[in-house]
Amino acid sequence: MDQDLSTYIDDHKNWITEELKNCIHGLEDIPNRLKEAMIYSIQAGGKRIRPILLIASCEAFGGESKNVLSVAMALEMIHTYSLVHDDLPAMDDDDFRRGLPTNHRKFDEATAILVGDGLLTLSFEIIANDMVLSNKQKVYVTKRLAECAGPTGMVAGQALDMYAENKAVTLDELEKIHHLKTGQLLSFALEVGAYLGGASDSELHVMKQCARFTGLAFQIKDDILDVIGDPDKLGKPIGSDEINDKNTYPKLLGLDGAYKQNEKYVQKAKQALIRANIDSTRLADLIDYLSEREQ
Amino acid sequence: MDQDLSTYIDDHKNWITEELKNCIHGLEDIPNRLKEAMIYSIQAGGKRIRPILLIASCEAFGGESKNVLSVAMALEMIHTYSLVHDDLPAMDDDDFRRGLPTNHRKFDEATAILVGDGLLTLSFEIIANDMVLSNKQKVYVTKRLAECAGPTGMVAGQALDMYAENKAVTLDELEKIHHLKTGQLLSFALEVGAYLGGASDSELHVMKQCARFTGLAFQIKDDILDVIGDPDKLGKPIGSDEINDKNTYPKLLGLDGAYKQNEKYVQKAKQALIRANIDSTRLADLIDYLSEREQ
Repeated sequence: MDQDLSTYIDDHKNWITEELKNCIHGLEDIPNRLKEAMIYSIQAGGKRIRPILLIASCEAFGGESKNVLSVAMALEMIHTYSLVHDDLPAMDDDDFRRGLPTNHRKFDEATAILVGDGLLTLSFEIIANDMVLSNKQKVYVTKRLAECAGPTGMVAGQALDMYAENKAVTLDELEKIHHLKTGQLLSFALEVGAYLGGASDSELHVMKQCARFTGLAFQIKDDILDVIGDPDKLGKPIGSDEINDKNTYPKLLGLDGAYKQNEKYVQKAKQALIRANIDSTRLADLIDYLSEREQ
Repeated sequence: MDQDLSTYIDDHKNWITEELKNCIHGLEDIPNRLKEAMIYSIQAGGKRIRPILLIASCEAFGGESKNVLSVAMALEMIHTYSLVHDDLPAMDDDDFRRGLPTNHRKFDEATAILVGDGLLTLSFEIIANDMVLSNKQKVYVTKRLAECAGPTGMVAGQALDMYAENKAVTLDELEKIHHLKTGQLLSFALEVGAYLGGASDSELHVMKQCARFTGLAFQIKDDILDVIGDPDKLGKPIGSDEINDKNTYPKLLGLDGAYKQNEKYVQKAKQALIRANIDSTRLADLIDYLSEREQ
């Protein structure tokens, strides 16, 4: 990876992680165990892909990263809550995430449920309490975040994914699941980053297309890594999709087909960036990075 | 109960229930089973106390009920989500609620988790999408709703309640748990209803005091009903607090002591209403009703 991109990712990852920790540390009147469990999952080594995409998208339209910090944090909190609930015994029943015991294994199941509920609610609180955004911007961000994360967005994706286990699905059905489950929050990052950076309606339209293809490419790579990834780098065993009879791109298209589909979507995402007619080098590099990553 | 109050409660209860059902029915692109499970819990016969208090508080300051419909619905969605998650096997492990199987018993545990997540997220979406409120009002409502429901509000109360099981607590600790777990959403109803009705800062201050005592009185009555209530009217067996070794007012103060504490808080709540210097007959009647209810 290009040194400059690597530094950009690391710097922003550290910044976001620090701010998230400080935010939860600063909560007063919260039970110690709940606070500890929230911090445990929030600092458990995520790539912070969504906040970084949000910031890069905002910057591509001339905005400043410090102005979207609350939104970046809210987005990562929602992503984290979804992982904590997804790992629960009644859902995917995962014992490890990013090389560490999952929240319900480290603490207990009830605490993990409340950690998820708490992070989800807190994400809306920090947007409403932001000191930089206008009320109009806050309402737009809240609306889009809730739409992308809620029962017609990410939560619908989780449900569809669960109900599709042990059933054969078509490629269209698989793409719909992934578009909802993973794509919605990635789309939020690129679209809302652009909005807060000052994108026009037509630019937003193009960024939504870019976001959709980026989300699908990201998910295909996730599926590929579950087949041929390095468990040490991933921080979890591979092969869990096959064991759980999950519907994945390699299962439907074969490994070669999945690679090709990934490449096709990366190109489509980058073509959309070119149409947006902005300084998009950083975003294009990030999209390549997502498709080439090993974890 | 006074016929006029009874009609007021029934009319508003039916209105809110109908609007909540329509709202979820109207969601497009949501898995059928998830939608069905959300509707199941949202129409499972709640008293709709919180939305009714919100509306009555708004009206006491000269506001109109139709202007706070979205907020009333959002509040009831959050209350419902908290019940669905609270009933889960890892939490209170309840099989019945309001005479019907709990969500995870009727559907499954994963669906119940997603129903809660979905309702919580949807509540913020409908406020952001409201057609009547100004952006400033939406941001205020979102901020207060998230504070009251989140990790320093209701979620903190759930956690404290759980961690306090099988442990002796003082009356102060018990009141703190109840203030967070039940009181926060009731406070939201009275306070935000007043705000949206046009209350001044000093009036809001008084309404917060009224809200705090109303919340505590409500919880004491809940505890009393779990000892001496009629299971048919409650729609659930009584005695579960004792079985689960929960900390309750009757346990700490005896049944007589709990009745006296309830009466004390009802009087304090009504005195605050008098200080607010508004047309508060309806609100005072509602506070009496909460304290005299049999379910």
